[in-house]
Amino acid sequence: MKMRIVVIGANAAGAKAASKAKRINPYADITLIDRGEFISYGACGIPYFVSDTVANIEELMSTPVGVVRDANFFKKVKGINVITGTEAVGIDRQTKTVHLKQKKDSGLFSVEYDKLVLATGSSPALPPLKNMELANILTVKSIEDAELLKQKAVSGHAACIVGGGLIGLETAEALKQKGMKVTVIEMRNQLLPGVLDAEMASLVEKHCRMNGVDVMTSSRVTGFGGTGAVASVMVDQCEIPADLVVLAPGVTPNTGLAKEAGLEIGATGAIAVDTCMRTSDPHIYACGDCCETSHLITGRKVYVPLGSTANKQGRVAGINAAGGEASFAGILGTSIVKIFNINAGKTGLTESEARACGYDIETILSPAPDKAHFFPGAKPIALKLVAERPTGRILGLQAVGEGAVDKRVDAVAAAITFGATAEQLAHLDLAYAPPYSAAMDNLIVAADILKNKLAGHAKGISPMDVKKKMDDGDDFLLLDVRSPAEHAEVSIEGAKLIPLGMLREKLDSLPKDKEIVTFCKISLRGYEAQKILDAAGFKDIKFMDGGIMTWPYKLRSDTSLK
Amino acid sequence: MKMRIVVIGANAAGAKAASKAKRINPYADITLIDRGEFISYGACGIPYFVSDTVANIEELMSTPVGVVRDANFFKKVKGINVITGTEAVGIDRQTKTVHLKQKKDSGLFSVEYDKLVLATGSSPALPPLKNMELANILTVKSIEDAELLKQKAVSGHAACIVGGGLIGLETAEALKQKGMKVTVIEMRNQLLPGVLDAEMASLVEKHCRMNGVDVMTSSRVTGFGGTGAVASVMVDQCEIPADLVVLAPGVTPNTGLAKEAGLEIGATGAIAVDTCMRTSDPHIYACGDCCETSHLITGRKVYVPLGSTANKQGRVAGINAAGGEASFAGILGTSIVKIFNINAGKTGLTESEARACGYDIETILSPAPDKAHFFPGAKPIALKLVAERPTGRILGLQAVGEGAVDKRVDAVAAAITFGATAEQLAHLDLAYAPPYSAAMDNLIVAADILKNKLAGHAKGISPMDVKKKMDDGDDFLLLDVRSPAEHAEVSIEGAKLIPLGMLREKLDSLPKDKEIVTFCKISLRGYEAQKILDAAGFKDIKFMDGGIMTWPYKLRSDTSLK
Repeated sequence: MKMRIVVIGANAAGAKAASKAKRINPYADITLIDRGEFISYGACGIPYFVSDTVANIEELMSTPVGVVRDANFFKKVKGINVITGTEAVGIDRQTKTVHLKQKKDSGLFSVEYDKLVLATGSSPALPPLKNMELANILTVKSIEDAELLKQKAVSGHAACIVGGGLIGLETAEALKQKGMKVTVIEMRNQLLPGVLDAEMASLVEKHCRMNGVDVMTSSRVTGFGGTGAVASVMVDQCEIPADLVVLAPGVTPNTGLAKEAGLEIGATGAIAVDTCMRTSDPHIYACGDCCETSHLITGRKVYVPLGSTANKQGRVAGINAAGGEASFAGILGTSIVKIFNINAGKTGLTESEARACGYDIETILSPAPDKAHFFPGAKPIALKLVAERPTGRILGLQAVGEGAVDKRVDAVAAAITFGATAEQLAHLDLAYAPPYSAAMDNLIVAADILKNKLAGHAKGISPMDVKKKMDDGDDFLLLDVRSPAEHAEVSIEGAKLIPLGMLREKLDSLPKDKEIVTFCKISLRGYEAQKILDAAGFKDIKFMDGGIMTWPYKLRSDTSLK
Repeated sequence: MKMRIVVIGANAAGAKAASKAKRINPYADITLIDRGEFISYGACGIPYFVSDTVANIEELMSTPVGVVRDANFFKKVKGINVITGTEAVGIDRQTKTVHLKQKKDSGLFSVEYDKLVLATGSSPALPPLKNMELANILTVKSIEDAELLKQKAVSGHAACIVGGGLIGLETAEALKQKGMKVTVIEMRNQLLPGVLDAEMASLVEKHCRMNGVDVMTSSRVTGFGGTGAVASVMVDQCEIPADLVVLAPGVTPNTGLAKEAGLEIGATGAIAVDTCMRTSDPHIYACGDCCETSHLITGRKVYVPLGSTANKQGRVAGINAAGGEASFAGILGTSIVKIFNINAGKTGLTESEARACGYDIETILSPAPDKAHFFPGAKPIALKLVAERPTGRILGLQAVGEGAVDKRVDAVAAAITFGATAEQLAHLDLAYAPPYSAAMDNLIVAADILKNKLAGHAKGISPMDVKKKMDDGDDFLLLDVRSPAEHAEVSIEGAKLIPLGMLREKLDSLPKDKEIVTFCKISLRGYEAQKILDAAGFKDIKFMDGGIMTWPYKLRSDTSLK
C-alpha cells in the first residue's frame, strides 16, 4: 500500500514538508490540509502589500515565475492533494486518524495517516484588552488581514500599532507611507526588544521619529474606546485617538491540536521536537511556527518563529516523514527588519540576552561606512559585537544603519555557527573592492577593537555609562578628539576639545590623575587618544564605545546619524 | 634604548604595520619609508577616480573624516616618522641597517633597525612587448597613474585594456563611462581567469558587451604601433587602433630588496613568511603584496595580493615587530568586482582550481532573485558552489549578477573558513525579511540542490556539457518545462516544451529509454521534472544546472540575464 502522509497547515513549513516528502517518496500519497482558503503565501510580504510596494496580493501567493501556488498548482506540479477551508479538530493516535471539519458546511470527516506532519503555525499573542471586538482593530497574519488593512489605511487618519517588534515596525512604515498619522506603542522600554540592546534600539527609535512616526515605549495598552469602530487606544493614564489599530504583539504557537492529542509541549510552550523534527509520537512530526527549537549558542530550547526557519524545518520534517534522513540542529535567532531607510538586524545573543544567560562578556560598538568611505553611496552602519570574555568566542552581533547591515549579519551568523572567536572573525577573508566595503571591512575593524578590549589594550566605556557619570555628577573629563569643524557641527555638552593631531603637544593641559573619557566620531581616534595618554603616563583613560555616532542621547545639534 | 622599527613601504600593509607597532609599543621609534611622494592611499579607488565617481584624488588619500594621511598626519597623530621620495636600496642584516637613496638628489644615507618590516608591494607583471615605451601606455597603480589616466581619458577616443582581470574590468568600465571606445584584450579564453569558471565568466562577458565594451579573449598582445604616442595594439595577427592603452596584467611581488639581502623567496616568487609574517631572518617581517601566504582550503602557498589581506597582514607584522604576539593563518582567495550593473565574486576554489588540485568534486549552478521575488528591486544572481564529493565540504562559491553578490560571498567565506559542509551551509540561520532575501536564501537553495546532487537524488548536467551533446549530435531530448509564455519569450533552439504542470499528464508523449535533459528558468522546476520522470520509470533523466538563466550560449532571444 502507498504510504500516506498527512500535513496539517499549508504555509511555509507545511507546504515545504509536503513537497519535499513527495520528492523523496514519489509513490507516497500526500494530503496537505489548511483551514484557510489561501495557502503557501508569503505572510512576511503583507506590510509591503499594504504600503503598495507590492502592487498585487497574488504576488505574495505566486512562485518567482508568477504561477499562483494554489490547490491546483500543488496537484498538477507537485502531485499533492490539497484540502483548504478545512480545520483539523482532533488526532486519534491509536488509529492514526485526523478528524477534520469543513468550515462552511460543518461536515465532519477524517483522513488516515502513516506519518503526520503538524505545521499549525502561530497566532498573535493577544492579552485580554477592553473593547477588543470593536471594528478596525486588526492583526497582520493572513491574506484577509492584508486586504482589510490596505482598505482601512486611509491617508490623514490615525493609526496605532500595538507592539514595537519586527512586524509592528514594518507595519508602521507601511501605514506612514499610506499617509496615516502613526503611533507605535511598546510595553517594554525600547523598540525591538529581543532583537536589539537598548542603545542600538534607540538609533531605530530616532529614525522612526525622524520619519514622522510617534513612538511610545514603556507604555501599556489597557483597552480601546469607540462605538462600533475603534476611536481611541487607552494607554496607561491617557487616551490616544485612533481610526485604525494594528495588533502586532509577539506570536504564540498553535498547539491546541497537539496538546489534545497528548503530544509533549516544551518549556517554551511550543511543541517539543527532536532534531529530526519528530514529536513525542514517532509517527508525528512538527515544523515551523508551532514548534520549538534549540539555540545554537546557548543550547537552550527557544521559540523564535520565522519564515526562514519554517522552510528549513519543513524540509527536514518532510524528508523524515517520507522515510529519508535529515536533521535540524537549531537557530541563532537571526532576524532583520527594514524601517524607512535603515536596516536593523541581529544574530546570536544581544548583550542583555548574554548577561541573562550568565555569560561573562565583553562588547564593542563600532560605527563605520559600509563601503570604502570615498565611494559614493557609502552609508554608515553601527555594529555591536558581544563576546565571551575568557574564550573570545563571539556570542552575537547587532547592526543598525542605512548601509548594508544584512551582509554583516549573515557573515557573523555563518561564523558563530562554527564557534568563531574575535581573532577568527578579524581574519575572515571577506570580499573587498571599494563598492562593497572598506579594505578593512566594518566587521574586521569591530573584531579588532574587540580583540584589543579582550586583551586589555583598549579600555572602552559604553555611552550609557558615560551618560550615567554625567547625570551622577562624577568628576571626570570628557575629551573630544575630533577636528574643530566636526566639533562645531555637533557635540556632546560639556566635552573638552583637543583634536587628535594636537594631543601629543597639549598633554600638559590635561590632568594626569583624573579619569578621562576620550571620544571621536566612531571611536577609532578615541582609542588612539587613549593609547597616547596611556603612554604619556596618564592613569585612568577610557574611550567611549562607538563615539558620537552611537551616542543615543541629546546632542548639541541632532544630526549624528545623517 | 628605544626599540627602532623600520617599515619599508607606506601603503596599506606598511602604514598599518607602523601604526599598529606604535600602538603596541608607544615608546618605540618608528620610521616609515616610501619611494613615492604619496603614502597610505587607496589604490583600489583609482578606477573610480578616473570615472569621476570619486571627484577628488585627495579622497583616496584621506581618512573617513577627511584628514589627508600624509607625513604630517603620521607624525602628529600616530607619532611615526615618515620619509617619502626615498628608496631602500639595500639591507645589511649583519649591522641591521637599511641603505636609502633620496631620489631627487641621489644622496645616500642609512637607518638602523631592531626590527624591519618589508611592505614593498607589487608591480604590474609586464611581459616584454614591442614599443612599450610609446606615450599613453599606462598602468593603474599609483596616484600619478590615476591623474595621467584621467587626463588621457578623452571621450570618443579608443582605449585598449590589456588584461581582463579585476583591475582591467574596473578600468574598462571607468573609461567607457568617460565616453571612450573600449576594448578588453585577454590572453586566456575567458574574462576573470582565476576568479570565475568559464560559464560564470561568460555572464560577465555578455554584460560587458551589452554595455558597449568590446571583449577579445584568447588574444595575445605582441606590441604596439605608433610614433611618439601609441596608435595601435598588435594582437596576434591584427592591429587594433588605440589612443590609450592600459596595461592591467597580473602583478608580481617586489622582492628585489629581499632577494639581495638573502631572504628566502617562496615557490610562488613572493617573500616566504611564517604565520607571524616573519621572513627567514627573525628580525625581518614582510606583509602585503610582496609576500606569499597560505590558502586555507588547500594548505598550499599562494600569491594573491589584495588590499584587504595587506591590512590584516600589516597588523600582524606590526604587532610582532613591536614585541607582541599575533598570527595570520591565510586566505581563501576571496575577490569581487563591480562591472557596470553586475557584481562578480568568489571565495575558495573555482571548479577548475579544485580539479587542478585533484579534488573529487560536485558542483551546482543556481540562479535566483537576491530578495523576495515579489519585492521591488529584486535582482537575479547566479551562484556556483563547488563541494568535495566524499565529505560534502564546500570548497568554493562563485557569484555573478545584478543583485547582492557580496553578501553571499562573505557568508560562504565565513562558513568555509570553518570547513562547512553543504549540509551545514543549507542550515545557516541567515537574516530573512523580504527586502533582503527570499525565505529560502539563494545560498540555502543552492546548498540544498548541492546536497541532492551529492546524495544522488538530483542528477545535474552543466550547460557546457549540454552544448557539447548538441554539437556532437547526441541522441537526447532537451525538455523545457517552463510556461508557454516563458518559452515564447526566450528559449534554447531544439528544446521540446511541456510545462511542468502538464508533465504528469503527458508522460506518454515522451520516450521512456531516451536520455532526457530537463530545464526551466533557474533549475528548480527542471529538478522537479527530473523527479517526476524518475518516479514514472524513465531511465536516463538529468536536469540542466542553472536553467536557461546561466546558459552562456546563444538563445533564441538574448534577454536571459535581464
